[in-house]
Amino acid sequence: MNKQQIFKKRPVGAADASTWSLEKNPIPELEEGQVLIKNHYISLDPAMRGWMNEGKSYIAPVEIGAVMRAGSVGEVIKAKNHPTFKVGDFVSGHGGVQQYVATDGKGYYKVDPNLAPLPTYIGTLGMPGMTAYFGILEVGKIKEGDVVVVSGAAGAVGSIVGQIAKIKGCKVIGIAGGTDKCKYVVDDLGFDACIDYKNEAVKERLKQECPKGLDVYFDNVGGEILDAALGRLRMHARVVICGAISQYNNKENMRGPANYLSLLVNRATMQGMVVFDWAERYGEAGQQMGKWMAEGKLKTREDVYDGIENFPETYNRLFSR
Amino acid sequence: MNKQQIFKKRPVGAADASTWSLEKNPIPELEEGQVLIKNHYISLDPAMRGWMNEGKSYIAPVEIGAVMRAGSVGEVIKAKNHPTFKVGDFVSGHGGVQQYVATDGKGYYKVDPNLAPLPTYIGTLGMPGMTAYFGILEVGKIKEGDVVVVSGAAGAVGSIVGQIAKIKGCKVIGIAGGTDKCKYVVDDLGFDACIDYKNEAVKERLKQECPKGLDVYFDNVGGEILDAALGRLRMHARVVICGAISQYNNKENMRGPANYLSLLVNRATMQGMVVFDWAERYGEAGQQMGKWMAEGKLKTREDVYDGIENFPETYNRLFSR
Repeated sequence: MNKQQIFKKRPVGAADASTWSLEKNPIPELEEGQVLIKNHYISLDPAMRGWMNEGKSYIAPVEIGAVMRAGSVGEVIKAKNHPTFKVGDFVSGHGGVQQYVATDGKGYYKVDPNLAPLPTYIGTLGMPGMTAYFGILEVGKIKEGDVVVVSGAAGAVGSIVGQIAKIKGCKVIGIAGGTDKCKYVVDDLGFDACIDYKNEAVKERLKQECPKGLDVYFDNVGGEILDAALGRLRMHARVVICGAISQYNNKENMRGPANYLSLLVNRATMQGMVVFDWAERYGEAGQQMGKWMAEGKLKTREDVYDGIENFPETYNRLFSR
Repeated sequence: MNKQQIFKKRPVGAADASTWSLEKNPIPELEEGQVLIKNHYISLDPAMRGWMNEGKSYIAPVEIGAVMRAGSVGEVIKAKNHPTFKVGDFVSGHGGVQQYVATDGKGYYKVDPNLAPLPTYIGTLGMPGMTAYFGILEVGKIKEGDVVVVSGAAGAVGSIVGQIAKIKGCKVIGIAGGTDKCKYVVDDLGFDACIDYKNEAVKERLKQECPKGLDVYFDNVGGEILDAALGRLRMHARVVICGAISQYNNKENMRGPANYLSLLVNRATMQGMVVFDWAERYGEAGQQMGKWMAEGKLKTREDVYDGIENFPETYNRLFSR
């Protein structure tokens, strides 16, 4: 049987037990040209919260009654005359929150488990890593000597953003929640500093850490941290809008950045990004990041949890921790 | 004697009778290398509200006790060995809200009253016109066929922004307050449409006028109109942040654009601008706009009021009308 998390109800505010239901359905029979993939790992991303909302966004919403959408990496265990994938291949794509998926392979690509552990292909070498890479290099346009601030600094995207900025010769300040995360960001990832927004005044600490202001702010969180960062912009600063996890579970309106006129005062730019736009260059980014990983310059860490049935609780850890 | 409006008290919220005091002081004696200018016209701009606030901005705040800062155009009536200006020259600069100013001429430049009426040199051929020109062309990066939305469309900046966009082959929708202003924007300035925010629902009307969304939004107002425009962005849209008149008199916090994640969904850019950055190219812009005016493609209109003593009421019309 195939355990699946079926999307049942669009949440208002945070997702909860009523958002999905765990179902066991037969493992699908293959049609001509399809493969059956056994998902080994699925990716849990804050962006999932957005996919559950109705309305126009950068990707169609998950339909009620469908398997919950998720990035995944797994192994081809059956194939019916598939043109490119064969049994034993490891592939990554959007396999969903389920154990098995039958697909024609569209959107999937092969990965090599000998070059990196499978979870890395949905982490640093997957969407979060690609988002970090193109976000900080192409949208943030960092250059040596820049002062870079990253929120969600211990997260899958933020941790890579900051390390790439360090590799490129920037001064990097992270913002994360809690002493342990901040210690990890500084001691293990090599950021120059990390501000603990749960225990420190972000605005004042940013002033200390960037006395002359910041050149690039990479935002994963929105809310008052975005406002604090806007208050520290240098001339011609770039603000990369990658996400807004602090706002995703709002029941009321989003909070907009009240300090946005700092863009005017400092002739600064705030630009939104969606990683899919760089799909043609994922290969180049993967090679570069793989090289940095091999050289020990880019560290990667995954939090791995077991069991499709535990998906709702594990997903909510993204917002509560 | 020299009538001057002296800045007395930093306003909280809107400026009022206590903000300035009218003083009569002797016309200053010239020092070596100075000229005495008789101001014929001074420019009243929403930006003045920002100049009265303490704290870091794109320009130093007006000091308490100083003559209120204002752009001006006037005539040199005395000169004491000035290297470039002589009696009879007409010059523009920041002469302040007063009848006479003694200056070494720094920041002033000559204008020709035979080519355009004097008020035009602090309007379309002055800061508002330069702001419009570089804002829509260099920051907005308009191209033929773009859908352009401009707030403050009947104002000194917005009216020029929209006309330049029309000259460049864009579809242009203005937003202005009141039937008369909207009629002027469409009938006299040639915008394709104008939304009356005082009597119409901006969000719904924008949907009608830009069914496929907008490519460039030029914002002079902020607040809910900015949010409505953000809700209509097309892919890769550009939002030019020029001002936020709806927020300048707020006693509490600024209202931030709650719809800012539309920048992410649409891979769009929001960029702030200050006209001074293009000072080296004012000549080029003035020539081009003068040419368009001569060809009848660019219309210009000034609201002229009489009397330094009436400055406070006249200034407040910027916010009340």
